Amino acid sequence: MRVIKTVSEMSDEAAGLRLAGKTVGFVPTMGYLHAGHLSLVKLARRENDVVVLSIFVNPTQFGQGEDLDRYPRDLPGDVDKCRKEDVNIVFAPEADDIYPDGFSTSVNVEGVSERLCGAVRPGHFRGVATVVAKLFNIVKPHRAYFGQKDHQQTMVVRRMARDLDIGTDIIVGPTVREPDGLAMSSRNAYLSPDDRMAAVQIYRALASARSLRQSGETRADVLLSKVRESLRNEPAIKAEYIELVDPEKLTPLSSAGEKALLALAVRIGKTRLIDNMFI
Amino acid sequence: MRVIKTVSEMSDEAAGLRLAGKTVGFVPTMGYLHAGHLSLVKLARRENDVVVLSIFVNPTQFGQGEDLDRYPRDLPGDVDKCRKEDVNIVFAPEADDIYPDGFSTSVNVEGVSERLCGAVRPGHFRGVATVVAKLFNIVKPHRAYFGQKDHQQTMVVRRMARDLDIGTDIIVGPTVREPDGLAMSSRNAYLSPDDRMAAVQIYRALASARSLRQSGETRADVLLSKVRESLRNEPAIKAEYIELVDPEKLTPLSSAGEKALLALAVRIGKTRLIDNMFI
Repeated sequence: MRVIKTVSEMSDEAAGLRLAGKTVGFVPTMGYLHAGHLSLVKLARRENDVVVLSIFVNPTQFGQGEDLDRYPRDLPGDVDKCRKEDVNIVFAPEADDIYPDGFSTSVNVEGVSERLCGAVRPGHFRGVATVVAKLFNIVKPHRAYFGQKDHQQTMVVRRMARDLDIGTDIIVGPTVREPDGLAMSSRNAYLSPDDRMAAVQIYRALASARSLRQSGETRADVLLSKVRESLRNEPAIKAEYIELVDPEKLTPLSSAGEKALLALAVRIGKTRLIDNMFI
Repeated sequence: MRVIKTVSEMSDEAAGLRLAGKTVGFVPTMGYLHAGHLSLVKLARRENDVVVLSIFVNPTQFGQGEDLDRYPRDLPGDVDKCRKEDVNIVFAPEADDIYPDGFSTSVNVEGVSERLCGAVRPGHFRGVATVVAKLFNIVKPHRAYFGQKDHQQTMVVRRMARDLDIGTDIIVGPTVREPDGLAMSSRNAYLSPDDRMAAVQIYRALASARSLRQSGETRADVLLSKVRESLRNEPAIKAEYIELVDPEKLTPLSSAGEKALLALAVRIGKTRLIDNMFI
């Protein structure tokens, strides 16, 4: 396994892989790898000749006052995990190589960027779309792998890759959960033991609405009330948004039909967590 | 020579050329080809195994009330010219293939997009940067060729290609002029015989400032006054902007040092023409 630290070296390597006719699967991450990331690596491993995983805590997708400075980092631990999963290349560039002096281009996806997390974190998905466009151009993957937990991100990236003809297929892997149901997230590391106990209620709230849906209830207001009521069992949880949306357009639904996604963001202390479930 | 009309066919062809190790030179145009375009083809022909020329009148770079509907078109004539210049592929896609239903991504280059033509045509360079990013991803060229007449466009495209790591070198060919000095432009076809006669004054005005500079004058206000005075010899010409700028940043200069670009846009009747000169 190689660890590549510069854009130019990664770009040359990727060009060589293309010329050699190898298929490349790419897992872009912000590091501090957990079982969710590694499930994407396993998917990529099955479907491609070469697996590239990037580790880059992208400053432009963090807003003022967000957790950029304290975002958890562990490059040696991440490299170990990648080696065990048979990753071929870990690409871990520096910020000033990705954003050199004079950098002034942004990629924006209208519509899907503006709702849900986008409404609370203005500019977040512009930062995501821009860095992912760059990473795709550097790594030149045939397929790129993202987790269902970040549903809105997958919609933004898929739209961007299609619209700009980047030629990378976007594959979405299922959300990997802790045994008690909490969705895997690098940000779970922020949680105190008490907050970690409270956080399980996020999953329970989503699951309670899913049960209600399975018993025949389709009205959005009733389903959303169920989630709110369930979250109130844990006073440490402050809901940021709870919405029932069309999974493609991310627009609110008044009732849950064939395809409906229940998506939420909450705060527990200073930690912001997101989760979602098809119901 | 092949004429390719769909994005998918061009993209497959380009992937095949990359896999075969061929270098690709690309000349993106809006068609109605003139000697300026063909000089770029000749450059591309010398430096690459394969030359691709695209013809696409990009709607998103035209503003409301601009000349999108009457922009001159002549695909059969353009194809003939390309065949004579030994172009390998003419790529002439339809607008709904480039911008399918649901298209919602834009590429924006801050700074250089906002001045000169960008100040008069808001959104113009966002349209340019977006379509050129797409064309680069579809055609996957090693080198792309643009004319010096569209100086600001070359700066926007170069910045975009660098910032997004597209891996295409931007080559700028010199402005090709009519025998009387008028810069070649597809929009010259709009000019009535009288307007065409008047238009030569654009070149003369730039050249008069260059002479003044060569005689030792460096003050921007004096050089710009010279251009204005010279343009006043043709009442049909209405200046839109006349600026002495840093060629890289496009910011105004108070005096002409080593590198200074005199850039202008004028209207003659309904026709908008641009030109520039290093002085």
